[in-house]
Parts: sequence; C-alpha cells; structure tokens
Amino acid sequence: MLKEQLLECHQRIKPYIHNTPVLTSRLINQEIGTKLYFKCENFQKMGAFKIRGATNAVLQLSDEQKSRGVITHSSGNFAQGLALAAQSIGIAATIVMPNSVPEVKKKAVLGYGGKIVLCEPTLKDRENTARKIQQNTGATYIHPSNDMDVILGQGTACLELLNAQPDLDIVIVPVGGGGLLAGTSIAAHHFGNNCVTLAGEPFEVDDAYRSLKSGKLESNKDEAKTIADGLNTQLGDINFPIILKYVDGILRVTEQEIVDAMGLIWERMKIIIETSSAVPFAAILKDKELFKDKKIGVIISGGNVDLSNLPFR
Amino acid sequence: MLKEQLLECHQRIKPYIHNTPVLTSRLINQEIGTKLYFKCENFQKMGAFKIRGATNAVLQLSDEQKSRGVITHSSGNFAQGLALAAQSIGIAATIVMPNSVPEVKKKAVLGYGGKIVLCEPTLKDRENTARKIQQNTGATYIHPSNDMDVILGQGTACLELLNAQPDLDIVIVPVGGGGLLAGTSIAAHHFGNNCVTLAGEPFEVDDAYRSLKSGKLESNKDEAKTIADGLNTQLGDINFPIILKYVDGILRVTEQEIVDAMGLIWERMKIIIETSSAVPFAAILKDKELFKDKKIGVIISGGNVDLSNLPFR
Repeated sequence: MLKEQLLECHQRIKPYIHNTPVLTSRLINQEIGTKLYFKCENFQKMGAFKIRGATNAVLQLSDEQKSRGVITHSSGNFAQGLALAAQSIGIAATIVMPNSVPEVKKKAVLGYGGKIVLCEPTLKDRENTARKIQQNTGATYIHPSNDMDVILGQGTACLELLNAQPDLDIVIVPVGGGGLLAGTSIAAHHFGNNCVTLAGEPFEVDDAYRSLKSGKLESNKDEAKTIADGLNTQLGDINFPIILKYVDGILRVTEQEIVDAMGLIWERMKIIIETSSAVPFAAILKDKELFKDKKIGVIISGGNVDLSNLPFR
Repeated sequence: MLKEQLLECHQRIKPYIHNTPVLTSRLINQEIGTKLYFKCENFQKMGAFKIRGATNAVLQLSDEQKSRGVITHSSGNFAQGLALAAQSIGIAATIVMPNSVPEVKKKAVLGYGGKIVLCEPTLKDRENTARKIQQNTGATYIHPSNDMDVILGQGTACLELLNAQPDLDIVIVPVGGGGLLAGTSIAAHHFGNNCVTLAGEPFEVDDAYRSLKSGKLESNKDEAKTIADGLNTQLGDINFPIILKYVDGILRVTEQEIVDAMGLIWERMKIIIETSSAVPFAAILKDKELFKDKKIGVIISGGNVDLSNLPFR
C-alpha cells in the first residue's frame, strides 16, 4: 500500500522537481574505506528536498481548497518549499514566520510569491497565528513534516537514489521533524535490497534518538540550540510510528563534528551543503568501523546557507 | 596545425583528467536574460584546470627527462597540478614556493607527493631558486602558463565544452598568466562556430587588458594585489601572440564585483568556486547588454578556497 502510494507520489510530483544528481568522491571514499553515494538535494529547486513533500501536498487539494490557498509555519526550508510549490500550481501560500527570522529567508519566500505573516518566536504563538489565519481564510494548513503527503513526497529522494544505486546497504539522512526520515525509511524498506535506514541527529536536539529508545515521543528543551538549525524541531505523531517501524538506528554527533564534516564536503567535493546536511556524514566519520566496506546512500538535504554567517574559522 | 595538436593533446591527457560537467542555472539565466553554460573545472582533479596543462607537459618528456623529474615555481593551483600530474606517471616534482604561502597550499602539494623548496616571496628569488635546483638536478622546468604544452592542455577544457555545446556565441575565461586564455582561444577558433573568446580580468592586475590594447607585453606593479590571487601574474611571450591573434576582448572588474559574483554563484548554484573563477561571471553581470540573448560558455577555473578566510561578510 505504502509502496504503491510512494510510486504514485513520485509520478505526481516528477514534473515539478529535479531528479537531482548522485555524486561520489574518490578522495572521501578512500579516506573512509567505504562507498558513499551523495543524493544532492542541495541542487533541488529552492535548494532543498522540502519542495518534494510540499508539491505532493498541494497537488492533492480539491479545486475548492486550492482557491483558498495553503498555510504553514516555518522559518526554514519548508517555508520556501511551500511557497514555490504553491506558485508552481498558481495558488496562494501564507507562511507564518517568527519575527526573529533573518531577512534573507523572508526575501526567499517573497521571491517565490509567498505571503509572510510574522509572529512571536514561540511555538505557541506560531501555531495560534497560523490557526487564526486558517480560520479566517479557509486556507489548508500543511505541516512541514508531520503529514502523510509530505512524508511520501520526501521519500521520493530515496526512491530516486535507489533507482540510481539499487544495491545500497544503508541509507542515512538527517532527522529533525521526521518527514524526511519517515519517507526515506518507507522507500528503503519497499525498494531497497535489505537496505537499512539510519539517521544522524545533533546531541543538542536528540528527541528522535530518545524517542526511538523509549518507544514514545520525547521532546527537546525549549532552549535547545544547534548549529544544524533546520533540525531544531521534533518528531510528530504521524511520522513517529513509521520511524519506529522502519528505522534501524539514530546516531548522534556534536556541534564541532557537524562543522568539521561540513567543511570536509565543501573542500573535497566543492559543493555547498547546509549544516543540517552535514549531520549524517558527521555520523559516518564518527564511526567509520560501522560503515566500513558498505555501500551507503547519504541524502544531502539542502544547500541554503547564509554566506555572511558561516561556521568556519 | 594547432587544431590537430589540440586534438592530440586531448587524447593524450584524457585518461588522467575528468571530463567535468557543464552546469546551467535557470535562475541566473532568467536574471541576466542569457544562456550561460558553466564548464566546472572546480570539479576537476585537484580542484582546477591546471592539471590539464601539467599532464600534457609531463606526458611528453623523454624517459631520460622523466628520470630527472620536473620543477616549477607556483604558489597556486599549478603547484598542485604539476605535483599530481607527476605523481600519476610516477616521476618526481619539485615545487618552489614563497615562504609566505599558506599552510593549506603546502599540505596539498605534499599530499600529491610533491617536494617543496621555499624561497623569498619575490619573483626574482623564485626564478633563481628554481634555476639553481634545475641546474643541480637536471629536472625539466615547466612554466605554469607560458609553455606551449601547458597552453594546449588548458585549451582542452574549452574543447570539451564545445563538444557538449557546439553552438556557443562566446566563451569567457579569467586571465592571469594567460595559459588558459590562449588555449581557450585556440579551441574556440578551431572548434567553435564563430565563437568569440573573451576574458575577465581584475582592474588591479590588468596587464592583459593593457597588453591587448598596446600590442606589446605590459606588466603589473610589484605591489599590485587582487582578491583573485590566482590572477596576480602576467602574460608571457609564448601565450601573448596567441592571445593577440585570437582573443576578442578583455573586460575588467572591481574587487567588489568579483566578491558579489562569487557569492551569487555560491548561493544560486550551490557550488564552490574560487575568487579567480568569479571574474568572468562578474564581467557578464557588469555588462548584461553585451551578453544579452547570447549562448555563453564560462569556464569555472577552480574551486580551491581557504574556508577560514572567505571574502563574504
């Protein structure tokens, strides 16, 4: 059932997304003693995989729903993803963003034709603001990660990766809200050849690690912070059961390990990846023995960085 | 004659180099109103086109010459290029570098098996040091840009670009020592379909612009400096006649224009290019009218940057 849904989803969104390249690096493979296949969603439209799930969600709205537009709250890539997905099919998108959001992120959403409503930088005010607008306009709320259409959309990156490299032993992704991880695990389970799904997560926001361990949804502290800011969010009740069923492990890394891993990819591969995307690679570098002689797919989730605020010294 | 030599050169070096990808950006093309084809030598082995010319030079040495090794003086990409080219065919390479050279560049040369000899950071001491070692060891001196084998090698990047996109109206490259520009102009003249060769050059080191204007070799001031440090060098007596014959114009850009152009490529294309590589793109951004509705090949010369010292604020 999920297998067919994922294939249908891929057919549906294909005309709206790039089948991004899968890159390899001889130097990196030599150093680690393994074979890494990087699925480069940093080259995706709007610079991240988020356009996949957003597109799958908006394409399934009724004409009635389309006429009233969509709404989400996000300060990250899903904000841009939903704005662009909505623009592609000619419907309105409202994005609730915290008033602390950097100018560059607002500009990107506006560039994709999105409407921005600012709120206080608390989860509660974000949700309240979104709900109010939803009630007034009748817009459809689309959650950045805890939504089955979004999850399936994000899973298509792994589907394409497995089409290109069917014999992967492992696929590893970053985990934040859980949409990419849940979608990836569905794809790996149904289309891989005994392909194991792992995730990398920052120690600082390790709710997914703890949730997988305890078997129930755990949360991060309000004041939790990580340099991989896209991952500073939590699993939800729709993606968690999928993750619990199909994901084999979550590996945690430190802030410095994230920066080092990011630098290594920038220097060796000459591609720009964002901090969140470096987390799975950091996990591989941290435990080379675990990954030795394996064929590993690594989903590079995005490449949206603020050049005026890079973590290298 | 040059036409056949270029084809032979390409056949000779092909097994040792990457046929790098040609990338396009819908967003950038929309903004400029033109079609740009980026030949990505930042993805080349050792991160720059320099491996092409170096490989062509070492492959044509006699066994006698090979046994005595090669030598050059360079603080930039040619140092790494020659070291790697020599390593690939199992011969020794000595690189004379100014004692002011950053640690990261020394490490790269050593990583490719090169031997480093440090000298004072003046052109005179570099040349003297190289000459002395050459006399003592019998090593063959290979100039980074003013050498016909090197020029032809660098021209193969444009040859590959034209194989991928035969109908380019313009090809544009950065100019520093002139090897890439001379080689590119040979390729464009003989294999393009009325393809014009242009170069971008920093105002601060504009010897090539002035030389093309006066018809004789001009030089830069000793204290000249540019952020595009790879271009802080001058044309030579072997490449200049070729440039005079085949190159249609040199466009100058400011330091800030270089940084802005580099940032735009990093942000939009998610690829890492070095400052020198941003110079031709900066020239295009500066005079959009000139390039409007044209098909333009842009050679991205390299992607070796020092992450701890980036020009963005």
